[in-house]
Amino acid sequence: MMPEHTVSSFDAELKELGRKIVEMGGQAERLVADSVGALIRRDGTAAQRVVVMDAAIDHMQRDIEEKAVLVIAKRQPMASDLRDIVATLRISNDLERIGDLAKNVGKRVLAIEGEYHPQKLVRGVEHMTDLVLEQLKEVLDAYAGRDEAKALEVWRKDASVDTMYTSLFRELLTYMMEDPRNISVCTHLLFCAKNIERIGDHATNVAETVYYMVTGNMLSDDRPKADASSETTVTFPTRTLQG
Amino acid sequence: MMPEHTVSSFDAELKELGRKIVEMGGQAERLVADSVGALIRRDGTAAQRVVVMDAAIDHMQRDIEEKAVLVIAKRQPMASDLRDIVATLRISNDLERIGDLAKNVGKRVLAIEGEYHPQKLVRGVEHMTDLVLEQLKEVLDAYAGRDEAKALEVWRKDASVDTMYTSLFRELLTYMMEDPRNISVCTHLLFCAKNIERIGDHATNVAETVYYMVTGNMLSDDRPKADASSETTVTFPTRTLQG
Repeated sequence: MMPEHTVSSFDAELKELGRKIVEMGGQAERLVADSVGALIRRDGTAAQRVVVMDAAIDHMQRDIEEKAVLVIAKRQPMASDLRDIVATLRISNDLERIGDLAKNVGKRVLAIEGEYHPQKLVRGVEHMTDLVLEQLKEVLDAYAGRDEAKALEVWRKDASVDTMYTSLFRELLTYMMEDPRNISVCTHLLFCAKNIERIGDHATNVAETVYYMVTGNMLSDDRPKADASSETTVTFPTRTLQG
Repeated sequence: MMPEHTVSSFDAELKELGRKIVEMGGQAERLVADSVGALIRRDGTAAQRVVVMDAAIDHMQRDIEEKAVLVIAKRQPMASDLRDIVATLRISNDLERIGDLAKNVGKRVLAIEGEYHPQKLVRGVEHMTDLVLEQLKEVLDAYAGRDEAKALEVWRKDASVDTMYTSLFRELLTYMMEDPRNISVCTHLLFCAKNIERIGDHATNVAETVYYMVTGNMLSDDRPKADASSETTVTFPTRTLQG
């Protein structure tokens, strides 16, 4: 049995790691919202800020990794405590990737600055982002509250993000086919949409980690998958262009 | 001072982790080569195999993570030994991502099965892949040989992958604009090319980790970046379509 004061400082270290994850999660949420906000408002300055701010998230990830490894080495935690610390390692990786993806959206906003933005399609990306941000918020709440039921709920909802992405993918392709002048901007919107969809995947990863952290069990490997876009093609509308 | 036999079994555990990374790296290389091979030969069966095989890489990553964490907890390693183990955690993450990206290429091959493949552009993807596979091989050699000079070399060469990707991106966009019937297949090729470029990024991450593992120093955050595609637009060739 460890002396009382050692146990308490171990608890304090675990809490500190948890606080850092929540902080990093908040920062990741903000970056995602800001990057898509910049896309909608065509705000190059805001997009540039997202690109710069991503470095702070990378730094948080390294900090959490370092502290987590030191706690493992110093405390030799067993079972559920070890799962807690491994969870911080995994979640910080996913949040770091989310930051990267938001940065990428920011870069695309800069790329299409000044070009015509098809409002309907931009709104499609916005709508998808709302859903993904909701997922991200819920899963961070699930982490903070150690709530495996909530994590499971997030995990189950990923399919609706994927469905939305697949339909947006089709729409963007159709738009390009109807008027080749849309190709450049729609390609960048396609990559934006893909980035948002992948942010949803990382939120789902976090849900799996929270579930594992709380219960010690892995969610089935059969993640609900409804993104069929990589298997989707859109038939060239011959009629429209030849008729 | 630890008793002799403890030191040796610690060494054996480190070697075992290293062996697992090399094995996982070989598996990731194979998946990348197979996915692009399937694209070139339009081989749906091979593409399907890549999609299935990715699960083995995911499994390896979890196995390495679990073993690395146990070694940290059991041995409480300091300094350079700790860097070694943290390196296995980081590299296995990058290799797992590489597997995912190869799987994605595999899925795209299935999507465009039966469609017309513009040979010139497929060759562009192939050429990029050759360079990325070379980078991946070199960095795994650098890891196995603890060779920081070689890691630095890989790190410096990422810019040429990015340059190649940016030029392919332009070419694909131009191709779509010239004939809208190419849009669907070119979009999938764009995503394939992007996946390969990102595999190159992960090889560069591994180079940074190897450098850190051997020297204890971080490579500058100013990674050589020459992928300007997310900032690239291609002007609609009015002449071609209106003339």
